[in-house]
Amino acid sequence: MSDHIELFRKLHAGPKILVLPNAWDVASARIFEAAGFPAIATTSAGIANSIGYPDGERVSRDEMLDVIRRIVRAVSVPVSADVEAGYGDAAGTAHALAELGAVGMNLEDSRAGALVEVSSQVKLIESVRAKSNLIINARTDVYLHSTGGDPAMLLEQAVERLNAYRKAGADSLFAPGVRDAETIGQLARAVDGPLNILAVAGAPPVAELERLGVRRVTIGSGAMRATMGLTRRIAGELREHGTYSSFTEGAMDYITANRLFAAAAK
Amino acid sequence: MSDHIELFRKLHAGPKILVLPNAWDVASARIFEAAGFPAIATTSAGIANSIGYPDGERVSRDEMLDVIRRIVRAVSVPVSADVEAGYGDAAGTAHALAELGAVGMNLEDSRAGALVEVSSQVKLIESVRAKSNLIINARTDVYLHSTGGDPAMLLEQAVERLNAYRKAGADSLFAPGVRDAETIGQLARAVDGPLNILAVAGAPPVAELERLGVRRVTIGSGAMRATMGLTRRIAGELREHGTYSSFTEGAMDYITANRLFAAAAK
Repeated sequence: MSDHIELFRKLHAGPKILVLPNAWDVASARIFEAAGFPAIATTSAGIANSIGYPDGERVSRDEMLDVIRRIVRAVSVPVSADVEAGYGDAAGTAHALAELGAVGMNLEDSRAGALVEVSSQVKLIESVRAKSNLIINARTDVYLHSTGGDPAMLLEQAVERLNAYRKAGADSLFAPGVRDAETIGQLARAVDGPLNILAVAGAPPVAELERLGVRRVTIGSGAMRATMGLTRRIAGELREHGTYSSFTEGAMDYITANRLFAAAAK
Repeated sequence: MSDHIELFRKLHAGPKILVLPNAWDVASARIFEAAGFPAIATTSAGIANSIGYPDGERVSRDEMLDVIRRIVRAVSVPVSADVEAGYGDAAGTAHALAELGAVGMNLEDSRAGALVEVSSQVKLIESVRAKSNLIINARTDVYLHSTGGDPAMLLEQAVERLNAYRKAGADSLFAPGVRDAETIGQLARAVDGPLNILAVAGAPPVAELERLGVRRVTIGSGAMRATMGLTRRIAGELREHGTYSSFTEGAMDYITANRLFAAAAK
């Protein structure tokens, strides 16, 4: 397992940018692995929705870990887990993740939609670092909670937080909610560790992110919400028109789908 | 709960055809409910794939029931469960389904890819009927296991099986794998109960199925496999081109997605 952690650590060191798609169930994890990604992440929002909860630590830690465990067991690539702010016990969550074979964890600095004090998030990261060799992806939600703030001030705040988290022991630094190339480049230059950017509509493509100095790209719940959008179109077509094209065109065939899980059948 | 069963029974009695989309997780179940379907079904293949197994009773009964329980708890419409051939204990599975609040169950007449004797499937259905008031959807796999057989003989075999299952206590009669209008019409006229047809590519649309006398339409793992196809396209685009259009165009937005699970947040 520590080999897996070292492999995952090296993927952050370049020269290529690390692209990590976020899975929400075993099917999506196996599809991402089969597409050739060298590692995958999970999405807390996607997993929560899949099992019936809104995002934001509404799911219990045990339920979240059960899905992560299934995913880790089903793929052979390293898996980094999105565990929100650690479910009230970040060090305990890190321990459980290591036990089940994950190689990394996200830790975000907001609780119930508001940023916590830098110092308290620093203490949280230090408490995890002291007990765990998982790759810690420290996330600041500065850009998620401040639509319309002064760009220079937001940048300063994000850099201050991310560098404090790096000093506290974080391995990579995540700033979701920023999508303009100039700010991303400034962030990449100003932070003291590998920068993780969230790929959303309007964000620069991977090649440009790489040129800007970004080291890691994730997609959050984007793919899961894309499948939810498709499911809604399927439902609408079937209910309004009684036809099947949105679920028959472009579907994975039954045999291919089942072959993804052949290992489980042994 | 028996009110829910009676409501579900009435939906098979016409005059309108019953269209039941098959969910594989809570998100898909809530999307189908929100689209206005008066009841939903589950898909065993879709649930198995979602939690890491190929189709065909490779998943344990407990794991299958855990997902069905989550779905039943999350929606207010009746839920009919696809439980394959009953996991070696159809009556026990029916009891567990009634306990968790499902209103119906599928029971298929093949094991490990081969049809069982009619008499043994009749006994199985009788054993469930004696102990359960769930709506039993008896499925014959005649058309799934006989590509290229003589059409008149297949029809005779399917009708013989479905009518024997009806006599044994089944409420509705399911013949997946048939898609031509003529055969569907012949089946609808020849069977002694409500006929369930699987909607697949090339099958008549819902309005035509209704004219042919079909009483119930399901979609099996079609919608789940459509989302798996989309996930594969997302993975391919991200890996080969480093772009995001397949997961950003047509996605459900984050707020709408999370609102689907607002009840769970109470």
